[in-house]
Amino acid sequence: MSITSHDVARFAGVSQATVSRALRGDPRVSAATQDRVRRAADALNYVPSEAGRSLSTHTTRRVGVLVSDLANPFYPYLIGPLHDELEQHGYRMMLLTERSDTALATEGLLDHSIDGAVLTTATSGSALPEALRRKQVPFVFLNRVDGRDGADAAVVDNQLGGRIAATELVELGHRKIALLGGSPDTSSGRDREQGFVAGLADAGVALPASRIRRGPYDFDTGYRGLAELLDADADVTAVFCGNDVVAIGAYNAALREGLRVPDDLTLVGFDDLPMASWEAFSLTTLRYDLPEMARAAARLLVERLTGKATGPARQVAFEPELVRRGTHAPPALRRAWRM
Amino acid sequence: MSITSHDVARFAGVSQATVSRALRGDPRVSAATQDRVRRAADALNYVPSEAGRSLSTHTTRRVGVLVSDLANPFYPYLIGPLHDELEQHGYRMMLLTERSDTALATEGLLDHSIDGAVLTTATSGSALPEALRRKQVPFVFLNRVDGRDGADAAVVDNQLGGRIAATELVELGHRKIALLGGSPDTSSGRDREQGFVAGLADAGVALPASRIRRGPYDFDTGYRGLAELLDADADVTAVFCGNDVVAIGAYNAALREGLRVPDDLTLVGFDDLPMASWEAFSLTTLRYDLPEMARAAARLLVERLTGKATGPARQVAFEPELVRRGTHAPPALRRAWRM
Repeated sequence: MSITSHDVARFAGVSQATVSRALRGDPRVSAATQDRVRRAADALNYVPSEAGRSLSTHTTRRVGVLVSDLANPFYPYLIGPLHDELEQHGYRMMLLTERSDTALATEGLLDHSIDGAVLTTATSGSALPEALRRKQVPFVFLNRVDGRDGADAAVVDNQLGGRIAATELVELGHRKIALLGGSPDTSSGRDREQGFVAGLADAGVALPASRIRRGPYDFDTGYRGLAELLDADADVTAVFCGNDVVAIGAYNAALREGLRVPDDLTLVGFDDLPMASWEAFSLTTLRYDLPEMARAAARLLVERLTGKATGPARQVAFEPELVRRGTHAPPALRRAWRM
Repeated sequence: MSITSHDVARFAGVSQATVSRALRGDPRVSAATQDRVRRAADALNYVPSEAGRSLSTHTTRRVGVLVSDLANPFYPYLIGPLHDELEQHGYRMMLLTERSDTALATEGLLDHSIDGAVLTTATSGSALPEALRRKQVPFVFLNRVDGRDGADAAVVDNQLGGRIAATELVELGHRKIALLGGSPDTSSGRDREQGFVAGLADAGVALPASRIRRGPYDFDTGYRGLAELLDADADVTAVFCGNDVVAIGAYNAALREGLRVPDDLTLVGFDDLPMASWEAFSLTTLRYDLPEMARAAARLLVERLTGKATGPARQVAFEPELVRRGTHAPPALRRAWRM
């Protein structure tokens, strides 16, 4: 004879409904009671069937999180806080990587095996947000938006960040300035570039197309991109990079080229990942509260899932600020190189 | 009236059973038929209920993957290949981080919401393997084992790696050698240390306790550990590090201390993560096929889940080899420092 939730209820001295709620972490049950119920379930070796529970409550207590590339150091720093905040509200995180934005992943987000979704890598061409809307699966944008209205979002003020970088480089005296930007089909790439170009324009500094390279937010975009920039225009003295990972790629390319940072070349990143402060880089970059941005996204979603928020879409925007470390300096006459 | 799988079957011209199989990626259905069924389901706006499917087949096609700390650059490199290999066999990956090794995570692995599990961060004290055995949830160890028999595992030959490092340092002429090791309650930490100590002993070189620091496989273990080692014994000329992340922490601490690598200090890592080859580090390290190790673990598990493998536990061990880059050199008289 198998153990049922009624046995657990008797053993714990609570109602069967309380057992169900306690075991799915429902906040209406006090922590002490949840503890008692879990201990009772444990003592009786009772395992609730998630499938049965899901059919009876029509919820899974699971949130799907879609990321593009976990090997990109940016995402792991989002995922930890996201996971913790969701867990605190009784939700489990189901991670889907974008390389699986094929049948299986889409099915995973649309087949009722999750209650809601966090999208971290939306592009302007993403079909997924529309599909989620059609199926009425609540979701939130984190870090990037798809450029259409109608969904909650937690983001950085990327235009402001671009402006701050432009102002800093111009005030240092740089005029031959380049951009190693993110992909133009991402809101972050587009907005950082727009803010940067606008900031330069305000100061009367041009950014010709020959001094712009764009690509995915990875090491190679910086590593190859810097070499290409210098091939096209060897006089560049400062580069604003789409994010820290790109900046660190550029830094390593500068080492390979025999350029000294910041004596020969100024580099500015974006995000302030932990590795930005490593002695090997000591990267000057734009910082914002990245873990708090992830937690904010989780809360926006949970408020939709629990019906606490029902109105129009909300956007939480975090302000970046410049962290001046060791990769910026006034432009200097570069010693001979590439002889 | 809602669309059922029977409607999809009629529309696609196949049986209802074929629709179910096709939509869960069952390999018995040809790719062409899977495609046709998916298109039909899409055209009819049909969404299979996973909960209902789970009750009827008693499988979830989900595999739980437990990791300790995603912000540790090691794990993302495991997770990509693991995800891809599982997906190729029709399984979805559900990621659980070890900080949730509390009620929720354990429940997640034990409540029948997954078919099997991949454990990447077992320690000798882990209760989870035993709990999984008791509930008869198949699992595989990846990278680390818990030291007891009875489960499939994909690992590195860590003792061999430790021996190779010892031999290299001794042959370079180092005698004042130190270890920044992994945690002793991990099989990788223990085995790398044992192999290293045995290799040194064979060459008649001692490793006194004052030249050993151990800790989690993170940046801080290397960063703080190197400073402590040098405080205890300023004559150390070479350090074997538990993994690349620890080695890069030590490298940055050396920069902070004003030590030149490798002139003043030789550093050897383990894993050959992409960042080991960055110009800023050019780390000498032990390499093995990390993505293939992850894929091997996925295959071992899938063979259990599908009943293809039923015999005793199997272990796949990958051989490490030394990659000589720029952080090793013979010991030299160190110029004055810390004046």
